[in-house]
Amino acid sequence: MWYNDGGMSELRQNIVTREWVIIASERSKRPNDFKGVRVHAPTHSHNEHEPTCPFCPGNEELDLEIERAPLDGHWQTRVVRNRFPALAEEGMPIYTFDGMQNRISGVGYHEVLIEHPLHNTTLGLMTADEITEALKTTQRRGLYMANDPRIEHTIYFKNHGERAGASLHHPHSQIIALPVVPANVRRRLEEACLYFEEHRACSVCTMLEDERQRRVRLLIEGHHFSAFLLYAALSPFHMWVVPHRHSACFLEMTHEEALDLGRVLRSLLYRIYSGLSDPDYNMIIRTAPVKEREGPYFHWYISIVLRLSRTAGFELGSGMYINSCPPEECAAFLRDCPDRPS
Amino acid sequence: MWYNDGGMSELRQNIVTREWVIIASERSKRPNDFKGVRVHAPTHSHNEHEPTCPFCPGNEELDLEIERAPLDGHWQTRVVRNRFPALAEEGMPIYTFDGMQNRISGVGYHEVLIEHPLHNTTLGLMTADEITEALKTTQRRGLYMANDPRIEHTIYFKNHGERAGASLHHPHSQIIALPVVPANVRRRLEEACLYFEEHRACSVCTMLEDERQRRVRLLIEGHHFSAFLLYAALSPFHMWVVPHRHSACFLEMTHEEALDLGRVLRSLLYRIYSGLSDPDYNMIIRTAPVKEREGPYFHWYISIVLRLSRTAGFELGSGMYINSCPPEECAAFLRDCPDRPS
Repeated sequence: MWYNDGGMSELRQNIVTREWVIIASERSKRPNDFKGVRVHAPTHSHNEHEPTCPFCPGNEELDLEIERAPLDGHWQTRVVRNRFPALAEEGMPIYTFDGMQNRISGVGYHEVLIEHPLHNTTLGLMTADEITEALKTTQRRGLYMANDPRIEHTIYFKNHGERAGASLHHPHSQIIALPVVPANVRRRLEEACLYFEEHRACSVCTMLEDERQRRVRLLIEGHHFSAFLLYAALSPFHMWVVPHRHSACFLEMTHEEALDLGRVLRSLLYRIYSGLSDPDYNMIIRTAPVKEREGPYFHWYISIVLRLSRTAGFELGSGMYINSCPPEECAAFLRDCPDRPS
Repeated sequence: MWYNDGGMSELRQNIVTREWVIIASERSKRPNDFKGVRVHAPTHSHNEHEPTCPFCPGNEELDLEIERAPLDGHWQTRVVRNRFPALAEEGMPIYTFDGMQNRISGVGYHEVLIEHPLHNTTLGLMTADEITEALKTTQRRGLYMANDPRIEHTIYFKNHGERAGASLHHPHSQIIALPVVPANVRRRLEEACLYFEEHRACSVCTMLEDERQRRVRLLIEGHHFSAFLLYAALSPFHMWVVPHRHSACFLEMTHEEALDLGRVLRSLLYRIYSGLSDPDYNMIIRTAPVKEREGPYFHWYISIVLRLSRTAGFELGSGMYINSCPPEECAAFLRDCPDRPS
């Protein structure tokens, strides 16, 4: 039997990250149980423009603006510096490695992409072309940061809803470029190298091929991207969107691929929006460190984590998760949700 | 200057875990800003007994009971099976390692320690002896599980408050014993081995000695345990309580040490309770895998994480954290909080 339907719990391993998860049978939930766990009002019920929203047209904080597109008339996307940046753009990184208190001065980038002029929309409600535009803007800013020799790694992420850490409702995502490769990212790279050494194949390519054959967790198969729920999903609806072409770095995505990714994300995020009543989520682009963008090992992808439950001491202490809903059931549920009429 | 006071942000590395954190200056908060972030009413304002609480005397779910102490008269602590266990006690672990969908049947233990008969108390309000009693009960159950050949690793944790993932307010903690060593724990061990190889010293012993000398982040120095905030604290008030004697495993703690740990935790958790108005927190015992309990590499400790802010896409994508309050300030704040009158 390919999934757990109320029998014993099961531990599953992700072959890419080597992380284990407990798919718990005793606390088992149905995909429907997760509807409307969010705290905020559904996005479409907000106002089109909010007088107090700094991301709404008319309230532009021009001192923070980096770019807008199009340049003339009404803008469609804007990139601004974060008003409270975690890192400063100015200055050289100063490395102090004394063995006890290793530190680096907080140099880097922290930018915000305003994805749409409307306050009451979100990726799932935009057109595929609007999503592609947002992705290409993200890529453009990522390339700019990657060319800065001080930068070693860039994190692209979106927080949607309060439970996902968003403080503003207006559709936006963020980019943080770091003067260091995080330990967690370094370990992912090491796992990818080990897998390649053992199998002469990329672990993500292998997983992708396997999911496209099995189809039980597959959500959408585009021309250049496929979306599926993970066999070892850390939480209900934990999914990856993976490019078919092996490539270590998001920055290498072609225009053709970006168009397809826009379509795949539109369909995927619309189903999530409608089927689960606009849940809070994080979306993260996992890509190679900017100075290690070549090679057969790493394969970039997008991870989507719905914030439907809380992490507690067990997760903090073990790095493992307890998932109360089998991904096969969640996948069937999302496949049944109607796609948005074009 | 030893801490960041509104100048540039700083990246800091934990020498034990090798994880980086951003100590952010721009979003900088004062320790006082974190008072009363919790959702629940302060513990002492609850009723002494709740008619609907399954952990209150009179409501004992006897079919789940594993042990109680003392055996006669009113109990002080009870251990019960979790009503919704993540893992099942019965059966042998069945390993299916086919390279694509590696899995293990969900065999293990999931127990709950009810730490006190009173509904409206918590570790910070108990006596040192009561805390010691809870620790020794935890140790006894951990030893029992460690002797089960199916078990490879045990997680001891406490969730206090809703934001920390607790669903019941009655003071309790949990033990989950796994048929596998989590990837995250395996990596900690590897880091410990690498550190030892390079320095011929345990990284935790080295950190402990350094913190006891510097004193800026030191909170309490007992006979056998010291508590300090981490140089690379992942969040405000992130702290470790570390045994002075090098030992890989919590199960090797002596009676003498348990008495001291009770005193240290009582003082520490009382200051947190009173100074920060009963915040939500997770407490985790980080210890070696049960089959690797010897050796000079690993050093067990207790980690306390206050749940004062949310993790978002950046943390999920990088494994790094942004901490908005320097640990040196948080340490000064807690040192100034009055200890509980004996």
